[in-house]
Amino acid sequence: MWKKLETASPGESVPLARALEQIPWNADGLIPVIAQQYDTGEVLMLAWMNAPALKETLVKGRVCYWSRSRGQLWRKGEASGQIQELREMRFDCDGDTLLLLVDQTGPACHTGRRGCFYNLVQGDKLTVDKAVLIDPKILYGE
Amino acid sequence: MWKKLETASPGESVPLARALEQIPWNADGLIPVIAQQYDTGEVLMLAWMNAPALKETLVKGRVCYWSRSRGQLWRKGEASGQIQELREMRFDCDGDTLLLLVDQTGPACHTGRRGCFYNLVQGDKLTVDKAVLIDPKILYGE
Repeated sequence: MWKKLETASPGESVPLARALEQIPWNADGLIPVIAQQYDTGEVLMLAWMNAPALKETLVKGRVCYWSRSRGQLWRKGEASGQIQELREMRFDCDGDTLLLLVDQTGPACHTGRRGCFYNLVQGDKLTVDKAVLIDPKILYGE
Repeated sequence: MWKKLETASPGESVPLARALEQIPWNADGLIPVIAQQYDTGEVLMLAWMNAPALKETLVKGRVCYWSRSRGQLWRKGEASGQIQELREMRFDCDGDTLLLLVDQTGPACHTGRRGCFYNLVQGDKLTVDKAVLIDPKILYGE
């Protein structure tokens, strides 16, 4: 099915249910998911979904990932209140990566920064170039 | 080291060589890499790098991935001429994902589209919403 869509013209479609059945999940049953702020274009984070997380995200319109470290569904913002509202979902050419356009409330990163990609390669250094917006102690009530 | 950078202020840095030693490669020795067009913000694709691909990308300033399907270094554009010039490289908070800002020549996607995320979820359908720019037969001389 992904192969067939490669040569499709804009406007051609397949049933979503069929596409979901054809996702080439990795060995752990997961797919990588890029979250991008819908209006600024900032890439906020990369996380992972399993089938239940993807289904919940589609039904509720609020992004739910699979936490690999905790081994459970991760309803983004459930602890911090910093939710991701789904604006748009896209599959890539071979169906093994998702791109979400989201509306992120506050910081997406567990460090309290807006996004996770704050470690910039600069010559022979790796430099932090984004500030913490909200102290994680406040976000997570530690 | 990644943990320490979590609380660092903008401007704080560590030696890049040290950061590269601390990359938490996955079980296959790979890290996922997001490529974003530097000026438009379009997310073009997600691919993977191993240590040699990352090193080559840093040295040459032209993006080199690891092709999981072909099991070899994949100098982006080597077959199609559609190269990615590296503009900026960023690691995420736990060092296990890369975000590249690139200047992509022509189509990034092997289908001949600008980017790979042309399969849009629309209600109960998955709809192709981007056109092929250059026929892959021309790109790859098939």
